[in-house]
Amino acid sequence: MYKKIDNKDVEYLKTFIPAERIFVGEEISHDYAHDELGDVEAKPDLLIKVLSTEEVSKIMKYAYDNEIPVVARGSGTGLVGSSTAIKGGIMICTSLMNHILELDENNLTLTVEPGVLLMELQAYVEEHGFFYPPDPGEKSATIGGNISTNAGGMRAVKYGVTRDYVRALKVVLPNGNIETFGSKCVKNSSGYAMKDLIVGSEGTLCIITEAILKLLPLPSQSVSMLLPFTTMEKAIEVVPEIIKSKASLTAIEYMSLDTIISAEDFLGKKFPDTNYEAYILLTFDGNNMQEIEEEYTKVANLCIEHGAIDGYFVDTDERKKSVWNARGAFLEAIKATTDFMDECDVVVPKDKVASYIKYTHEVAKEVNLRIPSFGHAGDGNLHIYICRDNLPNDEWEIRLNKAFDMLYNKANEFDGHVSGEHGIGYAKRKYLANQVGEQQIQLMQGIKKVFDPKEILNPGKVCYINE
Amino acid sequence: MYKKIDNKDVEYLKTFIPAERIFVGEEISHDYAHDELGDVEAKPDLLIKVLSTEEVSKIMKYAYDNEIPVVARGSGTGLVGSSTAIKGGIMICTSLMNHILELDENNLTLTVEPGVLLMELQAYVEEHGFFYPPDPGEKSATIGGNISTNAGGMRAVKYGVTRDYVRALKVVLPNGNIETFGSKCVKNSSGYAMKDLIVGSEGTLCIITEAILKLLPLPSQSVSMLLPFTTMEKAIEVVPEIIKSKASLTAIEYMSLDTIISAEDFLGKKFPDTNYEAYILLTFDGNNMQEIEEEYTKVANLCIEHGAIDGYFVDTDERKKSVWNARGAFLEAIKATTDFMDECDVVVPKDKVASYIKYTHEVAKEVNLRIPSFGHAGDGNLHIYICRDNLPNDEWEIRLNKAFDMLYNKANEFDGHVSGEHGIGYAKRKYLANQVGEQQIQLMQGIKKVFDPKEILNPGKVCYINE
Repeated sequence: MYKKIDNKDVEYLKTFIPAERIFVGEEISHDYAHDELGDVEAKPDLLIKVLSTEEVSKIMKYAYDNEIPVVARGSGTGLVGSSTAIKGGIMICTSLMNHILELDENNLTLTVEPGVLLMELQAYVEEHGFFYPPDPGEKSATIGGNISTNAGGMRAVKYGVTRDYVRALKVVLPNGNIETFGSKCVKNSSGYAMKDLIVGSEGTLCIITEAILKLLPLPSQSVSMLLPFTTMEKAIEVVPEIIKSKASLTAIEYMSLDTIISAEDFLGKKFPDTNYEAYILLTFDGNNMQEIEEEYTKVANLCIEHGAIDGYFVDTDERKKSVWNARGAFLEAIKATTDFMDECDVVVPKDKVASYIKYTHEVAKEVNLRIPSFGHAGDGNLHIYICRDNLPNDEWEIRLNKAFDMLYNKANEFDGHVSGEHGIGYAKRKYLANQVGEQQIQLMQGIKKVFDPKEILNPGKVCYINE
Repeated sequence: MYKKIDNKDVEYLKTFIPAERIFVGEEISHDYAHDELGDVEAKPDLLIKVLSTEEVSKIMKYAYDNEIPVVARGSGTGLVGSSTAIKGGIMICTSLMNHILELDENNLTLTVEPGVLLMELQAYVEEHGFFYPPDPGEKSATIGGNISTNAGGMRAVKYGVTRDYVRALKVVLPNGNIETFGSKCVKNSSGYAMKDLIVGSEGTLCIITEAILKLLPLPSQSVSMLLPFTTMEKAIEVVPEIIKSKASLTAIEYMSLDTIISAEDFLGKKFPDTNYEAYILLTFDGNNMQEIEEEYTKVANLCIEHGAIDGYFVDTDERKKSVWNARGAFLEAIKATTDFMDECDVVVPKDKVASYIKYTHEVAKEVNLRIPSFGHAGDGNLHIYICRDNLPNDEWEIRLNKAFDMLYNKANEFDGHVSGEHGIGYAKRKYLANQVGEQQIQLMQGIKKVFDPKEILNPGKVCYINE
């Protein structure tokens, strides 16, 4: 049904994109055939490294007229196959569109191209005394990818998710038209929330070529504490108590000893403490140390009443580095312990986290697979890894599917969602359909067709369950 | 094209709705023919006061099968004709669905029916030590209306707008199906952002029958200051300086002497000070008085450096009442000074507010009409009132249209939006189309048709410019 790329297409594209930014067939590195988890593999026929909105618009217009599938890709750090070219065609790589265009101190906004990496963005604004709160673990993701998945990260407890920090998006529609949704304005009640619809749409409705982000003043103080517990149950059961205490926290992360040890092995660096089964890591921030002290004292006492063995400040540079580097490396560290793994990033209401983690242990036993997890206890978003550990492939598939069915069914039962921040992409479509039902899938497909009547942009993803 | 209501329809509806909640033709009060501004007038053929999602679903299903237009209405405090039955048909009044269903202290959420009034909701959560930050001036609006317009209010500077506090919506679709978008979860990256699309869609995509709102712990301290200036220019020009200082403010409102005097006359109550041309009202909140003191001292000094004559604390109960009652009565007070008025609630980037207010004075001179304004200097959302003052109707129309054209063109020039929080409804459709252009209007119409293929739900609004 789609047009297959041929020499004529390549020649045309070379009339406005220099040949050194166009890669055909075997010239394309295998890296572009998959994302970070690698269970969805497909190579595009053509890879184009774009530099501008206008280039994207011209490519898209040509693809639209000729019915060629197109998919946009940033750093390829996705986990659900969102940015894989499952129908072939053109892959637009945005990683050279990596410029910070404007810091507007009057409006507290930052204008960026989509290929800017999260770590570059955070470093830039913090140098200038500003703060971009969304803080997903994967710092080498592009901001375009973060917006496309509505990434959340560790500070969502206090600051919310990527959506809350996107003021405007310049995009190229499937027909090649360039549109801007939103502005630097704080409020907007002017027609449907198009900007919000694009956030989290995983590159299926349009290609983001510029974003205006909301910034906050950088809090002058930030304190983290690590609290060990003898069991994971005890560690997690304290979280609803913390929330009920109305304390103001920036992050509540949980981690188990085996994950910490994997990170120590992976990084070759020691974690400050490895004497207990489970840990929670708390962060507090603000501008007034007295207020922060009151908060962490209250919370630490509460945790100790509820079974914490101790509370260490993560205060020296060395300790900060060892804890946060470990936290940042958990995914890679778990990956290094097994030959293959798949993931699940369900989100459940905060007061269901303890029950849900307990349930992952039951699933692990039931399917006889190792299922480590870590994640955001304070916002209910878990990162759960199902490890193959050299199991033969057919047996792995059976057990993996059973584990996924159990995990997603339990999330539904708890009124949770399939994905808290990684998205649906290709790998999780079936589970989305199960969760939201036929009517909602029809609405989503309808919206997709409004933007993309020829279904050329990142086809077969999110709400297309049978492709 | 639509089916006209007849006796058979009424008889059918009476099979599941008691007759005392169904009003036909002349039984319907004229109040239901318009909203707060009254320039769009149209009476429904049938008014039904609903009690449940299931009733709404059955009505909607019948209307869908029979192609009868339906519009939902809360308190009728809108300003752009969103909830008027311009095509006749059925009006669903949600004001009896006014129950607070659940306060969930573990997840910091409140579940409500759509007819709960903002003032009831705020009072309820504050009694329990929680905080619902969105704070539009009109406290007798329903929460359903606030969600449908993505209302903003005074605390948007620090806390954001209604959208940021909606976790989930139970809705009835035009075909009668009941769906829930979102959940109590903090994060969500599971398919398109349907919940966010519904927020601000002014009752054109579905009818909201239940909402789960996000709460915060109630800040223990709140301090307001009133600062007089000799001119409005001086008052407004200080605002970008405040924002650049990175101070943490909850609200920055501006008000002119003539508006304050209108409020004094309207309420029969004195304002604390009426010696100067212009005032800004600042609010600071938090849990630590020391931190708040540091902030307001910094900001007050900055204001005095930039021309503030003084800084009064709005601290005694009496003073709080006189200031906030006046602020809450501005719309009604201005309305009482003229026989008729129309409004414009443009939003512009924060650093354009001073220029924009100056421009409203130029427009007033150009069209020779009185154009008072007040509003949210801290978030760029202005409330501008164009007063007829007994002008003959044909002349009024000419001057009003000229004033609107000038005001909305200037907002476009400043990269602003037609509406910051009141919506587009019926009255502002032309200006929305001018602002966003044909492609975006087509996308919005496409989305509308996905939800409502027969165009029976609140037809002719928002993106339908020629009806």
